[in-house]
Amino acid sequence: MNIVPYVRRTQFYETDQMGVIHHSNYIRWFEEARVDFLEQIGFPYERVESRGITFAVLSLSCEYRSSVLFGDRVHIATGVADCGHARMTMAYRVTDAASGELRTTGETRHFFFRKEDARPVSLKKAIPELYDLFCSLKPERR
Amino acid sequence: MNIVPYVRRTQFYETDQMGVIHHSNYIRWFEEARVDFLEQIGFPYERVESRGITFAVLSLSCEYRSSVLFGDRVHIATGVADCGHARMTMAYRVTDAASGELRTTGETRHFFFRKEDARPVSLKKAIPELYDLFCSLKPERR
Amino acid sequence: MNIVPYVRRTQFYETDQMGVIHHSNYIRWFEEARVDFLEQIGFPYERVESRGITFAVLSLSCEYRSSVLFGDRVHIATGVADCGHARMTMAYRVTDAASGELRTTGETRHFFFRKEDARPVSLKKAIPELYDLFCSLKPERR
Amino acid sequence: MNIVPYVRRTQFYETDQMGVIHHSNYIRWFEEARVDFLEQIGFPYERVESRGITFAVLSLSCEYRSSVLFGDRVHIATGVADCGHARMTMAYRVTDAASGELRTTGETRHFFFRKEDARPVSLKKAIPELYDLFCSLKPERR
Repeated sequence: MNIVPYVRRTQFYETDQMGVIHHSNYIRWFEEARVDFLEQIGFPYERVESRGITFAVLSLSCEYRSSVLFGDRVHIATGVADCGHARMTMAYRVTDAASGELRTTGETRHFFFRKEDARPVSLKKAIPELYDLFCSLKPERR
Repeated sequence: MNIVPYVRRTQFYETDQMGVIHHSNYIRWFEEARVDFLEQIGFPYERVESRGITFAVLSLSCEYRSSVLFGDRVHIATGVADCGHARMTMAYRVTDAASGELRTTGETRHFFFRKEDARPVSLKKAIPELYDLFCSLKPERR
Repeated sequence: MNIVPYVRRTQFYETDQMGVIHHSNYIRWFEEARVDFLEQIGFPYERVESRGITFAVLSLSCEYRSSVLFGDRVHIATGVADCGHARMTMAYRVTDAASGELRTTGETRHFFFRKEDARPVSLKKAIPELYDLFCSLKPERR
Repeated sequence: MNIVPYVRRTQFYETDQMGVIHHSNYIRWFEEARVDFLEQIGFPYERVESRGITFAVLSLSCEYRSSVLFGDRVHIATGVADCGHARMTMAYRVTDAASGELRTTGETRHFFFRKEDARPVSLKKAIPELYDLFCSLKPERR
């Protein structure tokens, strides 16, 4: 499956008084990239939700390598870093669209739950084809 | 009824690269001040909602008089500018807490609707005591 | 000059607990559309700034006609509503990309100032070709 | 030194359509708590900046333990987790103000640089009394 990076233009309102994109925005960009990723693999957010399942963020991390400025265009390469029955980890790599220079890397860890009663569920049981898809996208361990 | 201004500290993440608080944040401060105002008049948001009613923004306006900086403390004086059966208008006046200098003024217009089916309702019929309260807080026309 | 509407995908983080896009985000979308508009007319933000001039928001207004949901795609048609030596007004019209239904309209009023000393300037004197361009884009009065 | 937790009221505009505070906001709350912490230890942001030094976020992490709702009040206990010549780590613990229940934990790692030329600096050399203060606040290793 050929997944292309999510392209994001930076916005003026995302800058701070240091003249760079404020660090909190990258967490939102990861979400945008995740939504885009789910669409690219054929499981857009609403399709997951139509199965009565949704997912939430358990934890996240972000490393800032170099600044992003207003007007920059970035690529956010998104992938499955780890997959489990009930939890999965996604990884993000933000690079400058023009120079390819690395800007930020990050990870978000998620769990799945039933919308009906907010109970955590095994994705493997609830939507096995999505579970299989996620696991198939995980990079091989060598 | 003695209603005191809402006090708001500005945040670093609210600044932009011009070195001032980004203009979009004032719209959010108006909401904070509105929530505080409802509490001060004894009708906090959850009390309105417990009656099956909620309200949404129909329109808003904002005039920027002078800049607010990171670290500033502002006062937001909030009041009822107009009240009707189905709609009401709130007015906001943001001043610097230290100097009293005027920073921003604004208005938001709201309508009320039933949470159940999203149908607009007359506040006068749905929660008459809140309607009366709003109207009693409206400044006298001379 | 053929100016196309700015296309904007809504984001999950822009929703609120009423299940719709929070009203404060439209103010940010107007800014995005404005930046895009300046690019389309050949005067991107950085070109204005390279002339030592920048502009700020004097006032704004926004009317909410119908809700926008997560996953919606909107078109934001942007234009010059009024132009003066020192001030200009831009108008925005947000419609659903799929249905064409009107979602929101708004206006922002701006003034121009020198970056060097923050003094207001006449755009007509500072960047006459941009002033002329803005005025030429203003709809005819009948 | 007796440092009290930062108290934060949640805002309506911070909710998302799942009906909880959107996870990206905690990153902003950490910043608010950090600014408050610096004030409490007698080194407010502007005092650091008046020495020609500022600091940026190198990396961060956040673990979400339980949801925070609109109207909740949270305490954010903030401290120095690690201190070095050029880098420091701060830790945050968000609890519900009413129940004391743990909501979120997080860390942010920072480096220091000269505002003048954006060059990284040793805090120990640039502002030795702040460096000593940070290190004195680090919990003892047992």
